[in-house]
Amino acid sequence: MRGVSALPSVSYSITVRLEVPAGGSSVSALTSAVEGAGGSVTALDVTASGHERLQIDVTCAARDTDHADELVEIMRAVPGVTIGKVSDRTFLMHLGGKIEMRSKHPIRNRDDLSMVYTPGVARVCLAIAKNKEDARRLTSKRNSIAVVTDGSAVLGLGNIGPEAALPVMEGKAALFKRFGDIDAWPLCLDTQDVDEIVAVVKAVAPGFAGINLEDISAPRCFEVEARLREQLDIPVFHDDQHGTAIVVLAALYNALRVVEKGIADVRIVMSGAGAAGTAIIKLLLAAGVRHIVVSDIEGVVHRGRPGLTGELAWLAEHTNALDVTGSLTAAVVGADVFIGVSAPNLLTGDDIAGMADDAIVFALANPEPEVDPLEAMQHAAVVATGRSDFPNQINNVLAFPGVFRGLIDARSKEITTTMLLAAARALAGVVTDDQLNAAYITPSVFNAEVHTAVATAVRRAAGGPAELPTDPDVVV
Amino acid sequence: MRGVSALPSVSYSITVRLEVPAGGSSVSALTSAVEGAGGSVTALDVTASGHERLQIDVTCAARDTDHADELVEIMRAVPGVTIGKVSDRTFLMHLGGKIEMRSKHPIRNRDDLSMVYTPGVARVCLAIAKNKEDARRLTSKRNSIAVVTDGSAVLGLGNIGPEAALPVMEGKAALFKRFGDIDAWPLCLDTQDVDEIVAVVKAVAPGFAGINLEDISAPRCFEVEARLREQLDIPVFHDDQHGTAIVVLAALYNALRVVEKGIADVRIVMSGAGAAGTAIIKLLLAAGVRHIVVSDIEGVVHRGRPGLTGELAWLAEHTNALDVTGSLTAAVVGADVFIGVSAPNLLTGDDIAGMADDAIVFALANPEPEVDPLEAMQHAAVVATGRSDFPNQINNVLAFPGVFRGLIDARSKEITTTMLLAAARALAGVVTDDQLNAAYITPSVFNAEVHTAVATAVRRAAGGPAELPTDPDVVV
Repeated sequence: MRGVSALPSVSYSITVRLEVPAGGSSVSALTSAVEGAGGSVTALDVTASGHERLQIDVTCAARDTDHADELVEIMRAVPGVTIGKVSDRTFLMHLGGKIEMRSKHPIRNRDDLSMVYTPGVARVCLAIAKNKEDARRLTSKRNSIAVVTDGSAVLGLGNIGPEAALPVMEGKAALFKRFGDIDAWPLCLDTQDVDEIVAVVKAVAPGFAGINLEDISAPRCFEVEARLREQLDIPVFHDDQHGTAIVVLAALYNALRVVEKGIADVRIVMSGAGAAGTAIIKLLLAAGVRHIVVSDIEGVVHRGRPGLTGELAWLAEHTNALDVTGSLTAAVVGADVFIGVSAPNLLTGDDIAGMADDAIVFALANPEPEVDPLEAMQHAAVVATGRSDFPNQINNVLAFPGVFRGLIDARSKEITTTMLLAAARALAGVVTDDQLNAAYITPSVFNAEVHTAVATAVRRAAGGPAELPTDPDVVV
Repeated sequence: MRGVSALPSVSYSITVRLEVPAGGSSVSALTSAVEGAGGSVTALDVTASGHERLQIDVTCAARDTDHADELVEIMRAVPGVTIGKVSDRTFLMHLGGKIEMRSKHPIRNRDDLSMVYTPGVARVCLAIAKNKEDARRLTSKRNSIAVVTDGSAVLGLGNIGPEAALPVMEGKAALFKRFGDIDAWPLCLDTQDVDEIVAVVKAVAPGFAGINLEDISAPRCFEVEARLREQLDIPVFHDDQHGTAIVVLAALYNALRVVEKGIADVRIVMSGAGAAGTAIIKLLLAAGVRHIVVSDIEGVVHRGRPGLTGELAWLAEHTNALDVTGSLTAAVVGADVFIGVSAPNLLTGDDIAGMADDAIVFALANPEPEVDPLEAMQHAAVVATGRSDFPNQINNVLAFPGVFRGLIDARSKEITTTMLLAAARALAGVVTDDQLNAAYITPSVFNAEVHTAVATAVRRAAGGPAELPTDPDVVV
């Protein structure tokens, strides 16, 4: 897989402050050295200049941390160069946190104070005490969600705890704002006990219009979500499950458009029966998929397999109608679609070659997919990954901001499968027939239409207004 | 007390859209009518004009809601006037909430995304997983606090619940930002059970540098605070207790400067032994007060009083050395200082006249003080209230932003009485000898020096740096 990760990335970007002799060829020697070592110089800023020496900030992209260290040493070896402070752009961006709280109104004088706070605020409190639903009109509850994690399954990093999860949750909050205009606040919990997580989320719910569960490991995530959905009057959405499921289904819709196969006809093999896998299967079934087999670390899930409990028992009951048994590699022979949300390098190019004609491969394990995408591309008609350096990225950011925007605009008290299906259809529909091809089945997250299309579909499916009102609420 | 509340206030400000005949005297008739009824016209905006009619937005301040309704009817009665929509400025300001979440960095393209979120964020997570304390450098924990309430004792409104408490907590968050540059997020809890409140706050603590408890009723607030302080490694501050105590002590320091009496010599009578009263007494004792008696609804607290438990037993043990018994009115005879945090109209002007010469009266019940301030002013040397329409407002906003700023800048894991005393001394010191007089013992909250003085004092008392570093943290 080394070839796949060989490109330098700005997410491993460093800025090196160094000094070189003035008037020589040191600068071009520096650039050549960095480029020769597989790095990429993205900026050269002269920060001080004298008769004898120049101070330069060299910003360059590396492949990874080790590569960044290597580039520093390579620059140090250039004759005449003195290396100073080395800064990491990603870390610099995180200094002091990525999000902040902001007041919408200036507090300039006593009059402002008396409306934003006491005594004026008391009347607003009394209005809400009289009619609790007014909190959705007169407070931040209207547009706020909590991003809740217990730090047990953060990205691919595993159980790193609540403090270490915070940068991801802040990033998520920033994305909610950027793409959904939603005010999300992270709550990283110092407990991994299901009862306690449920109690905490229930307790904080009055201030929020929705709950986004994030990076909670299976199988606890299923119970946490189910119990919260039953007990709360606001929507609860586990993004690792349903966000992924929406984007996978949308991508599948479009991949099927490319290969001209029907969703009810294709034979699908899944790898991975965790949080994402389970949610994907449920949504695929709801979308009309009839032939689906799922494999986990013990092989294909079938009714006769011993020790099935919980969600796995449900999957055995509702998939694999022909009671296929055996390994993943055996199951993919002749299949139309492979969807992996599991582990690196489970399949080879030959396995993909053994699939049906015009095969579709979604190899979503990150950062290393179930099959090398470059090899898969040689045999499959459509290949998608979770990575940003290949075409067809399956990225939850395509779904969650629009989903919550729609839920909030509809003042929805729940989230249903109907809404998830509507979101997936809307997301797929953003790619027009003219744009659609094997390398473009998912739109860019920076395409603003993505988020409004998803939001509109979810809002309408949630029983919200067909069009959003242009006037603010009237208050008398 | 009617006379005290007779002034129109912008916190009861309404904007009335109306039409009047063009070219007549209707506008001046409107203004006269409003002023004649005790209102105050603060703006007249012509929003549309024709040959026959003018459309005008009349903004006026009323005394209260009933008075606002009365003003509308008085305008309606002016010949030729047609009343349209009536808007309430305070409610308009609350529409959609007063606070929002904001991302500090723009997310313009894939490069930004890869640093704010995946894959770059993973390295930051790993750094914190390795060293948890790095969360104070690399995440929003550095500058964030939770404003936590159970909605059980909101302002003077009582047990109105978490949704109705939200406007106050948002206002508080706005004040934290405005005066302390702190990112506060409200958590309004759907439980009033001490164990559950403690469990919830403990669970959410990893994401915050401090906890501000707010409007939780006594005696539960004592236990909640004590248990959280014991279990958490971040400072826990119940503003109703300690914020009030800091400002009262600061005001007392300055009142004593005015009358030239010593804090160890004066005889103090308190009314109110709830959250605020208890905290005030404890801080006064720590500041060197020796003669203090406290009275609650059952009269003076003394060792022999039956049924004393919890904080009340502590108060009996540590106050009233002479074992005075009887009523509040009897206790204030000859006292140097009266401090009320209790209920309206417990004392008369005559009671104040019976105090010692150069008496100090802090009548802080809100909106109606323990004694009519106008009457108290006739007999006492210094009078303070909790109201903004009298001199010497005792306002917690003078304390809490600076206190938390100092705690955060010191990365303090706790808050101690030494820090509270330092805050009170710093706050008192903002009023210079040249400025000090009987009508100016507390500075304005809009005096920026207030918050930096308090923050600096708390930071140093918490063992933080004497001066704040001017450079941001260096990241390698």
